Amino acid sequence: MEADLIARHFAGLGAARTDVRLGVGDDAALLAVPAGHELVLTTDALVDQVHFDARSPAHSLGHRALAVNLSDLAAMGATPAWALLSLNLPRVDEVWLGQFATGFDALARQHGVALVGGNLSRGSLSITVQMAGLVPAGQALLRAGAQPDELVYVSGTPGDAAQGLLAGPGSALRARFEYPTPRVPLGIALRGIASACIDLSDGLYADLGRLLAASRCGADLELRRLPVSPGLEAALGGEAWRRVLAGGEDYELAFTVPLQRQAELEKVARSQDFPVTCIGRTRSGAGIRLSLDGNVMDFTHPGFDHFAAGA
Amino acid sequence: MEADLIARHFAGLGAARTDVRLGVGDDAALLAVPAGHELVLTTDALVDQVHFDARSPAHSLGHRALAVNLSDLAAMGATPAWALLSLNLPRVDEVWLGQFATGFDALARQHGVALVGGNLSRGSLSITVQMAGLVPAGQALLRAGAQPDELVYVSGTPGDAAQGLLAGPGSALRARFEYPTPRVPLGIALRGIASACIDLSDGLYADLGRLLAASRCGADLELRRLPVSPGLEAALGGEAWRRVLAGGEDYELAFTVPLQRQAELEKVARSQDFPVTCIGRTRSGAGIRLSLDGNVMDFTHPGFDHFAAGA
Repeated sequence: MEADLIARHFAGLGAARTDVRLGVGDDAALLAVPAGHELVLTTDALVDQVHFDARSPAHSLGHRALAVNLSDLAAMGATPAWALLSLNLPRVDEVWLGQFATGFDALARQHGVALVGGNLSRGSLSITVQMAGLVPAGQALLRAGAQPDELVYVSGTPGDAAQGLLAGPGSALRARFEYPTPRVPLGIALRGIASACIDLSDGLYADLGRLLAASRCGADLELRRLPVSPGLEAALGGEAWRRVLAGGEDYELAFTVPLQRQAELEKVARSQDFPVTCIGRTRSGAGIRLSLDGNVMDFTHPGFDHFAAGA
Repeated sequence: MEADLIARHFAGLGAARTDVRLGVGDDAALLAVPAGHELVLTTDALVDQVHFDARSPAHSLGHRALAVNLSDLAAMGATPAWALLSLNLPRVDEVWLGQFATGFDALARQHGVALVGGNLSRGSLSITVQMAGLVPAGQALLRAGAQPDELVYVSGTPGDAAQGLLAGPGSALRARFEYPTPRVPLGIALRGIASACIDLSDGLYADLGRLLAASRCGADLELRRLPVSPGLEAALGGEAWRRVLAGGEDYELAFTVPLQRQAELEKVARSQDFPVTCIGRTRSGAGIRLSLDGNVMDFTHPGFDHFAAGA
């Protein structure tokens, strides 16, 4: 039954790649790695009642499970290649599986990713994806590369996903939660331009804080520069900036760019239509300092913590 | 808290490897792949109430979660390199985490494996490990390579783990279930010798059947040749062979060897003390035919199926 389910729903998912010597169906997948590249590996999981609930369509879960991993590769500047999928299911639901596979497949094909292995187990619903990607040796984007006096950028409009989740099904922002856009082409374009990069899963404030901590510097952000979507503006008005900073589930990129590479970044962003916004500047010291028209604003947010309540 | 837990229990787990450019702590791990090698990727999960229960010590689960993945690499003839760990935990239990990490670490070090990433989520207890290994290009062992008139071998004494699980804590065979031995050095030694290979997770009969199906041939097995441990013999006497065939959770290797390579295999096995037993011979056709002193025996066993009851 397990082998049948895998054959019916998961064999051949994603793109066809000539570097897949052996995909689903043996003890492991066998893959050709091109010379001069480093391998980039990551894993992330979606767990029922933590990352989603019964209102989340299976098609969206297939998309998100892959997207959150693609986003990690994007943050490294890596080109996605191969995915493994480990599914725990309480029972066999062929309709659910079909819709999940369709959502996964569409995003995988869009990014040239082949599903090369995985397994199904009975268990509480949880979805673990492992992604492997490639980056030319020495060109990966790390969290730790920022220096003082560089520009701080963010992609897209953070906060929309968190607001969409609160709004519930049917709201226009809900799609930003259910179908996040992993910024893979942007990450690849940032090779050689960005000095540090991170993807936003726990919110801009928390994740940018991690990049800064890894880089041992601080940053000044100007609240008026934060990108706010029309939908978020309509929902929250003057308080929208708080959601932009605290949000979560954005899967946008935050990154730093040395001043002398700003023109190059802006040119690439224009020519490829990447939605990026300069929101501030790094400085020596530590932490994020927020200001509005020159006045320092108070903001603290711990970021999302799975174990905060239960620990 | 999540980052704290990871730092406290999982940072630096396993072997130190110079090919790990970046391990735990960024958006993804960054790894150097040597020229002339193919990448081998696999994932397997242990789920509470399916693969273990409350009687399973955390130390054993740390070992097993890695061992079942190492076994997949062994079956490919791959050299293990890097692991990712995705843990869903219902609550933070520092003692449990510490024991789990110790069991994982000991086996990882034994096989030169570095833990390079992963994540923790709140959720029903389940453990998903992803393993990456390397094999010289073109030398991987596949399931599909067997030809008729080759020798069929198995390592170790299958059936012990299943018997140990039934016997419960305290029995001597229980250790074969709680601490399976992934046959990594044997798998590596079988490069260029074995024509096909598979690891035994669902039982010798079911898994050898998969190898034969992939290779489009059948096999004749002689019951008197099946390796039976003294413990299994003591427990089951003349019926022990049924457990050897049906067992499950063995993580031994079944493989085929062309006649002209038998001497080489036996020499390697002797010199490196690999416990391997020739149990029969492949033939054209399909399926496994069992005989006892020339008489064909009847045996059917579907293998373990997680969804057999619930589907």
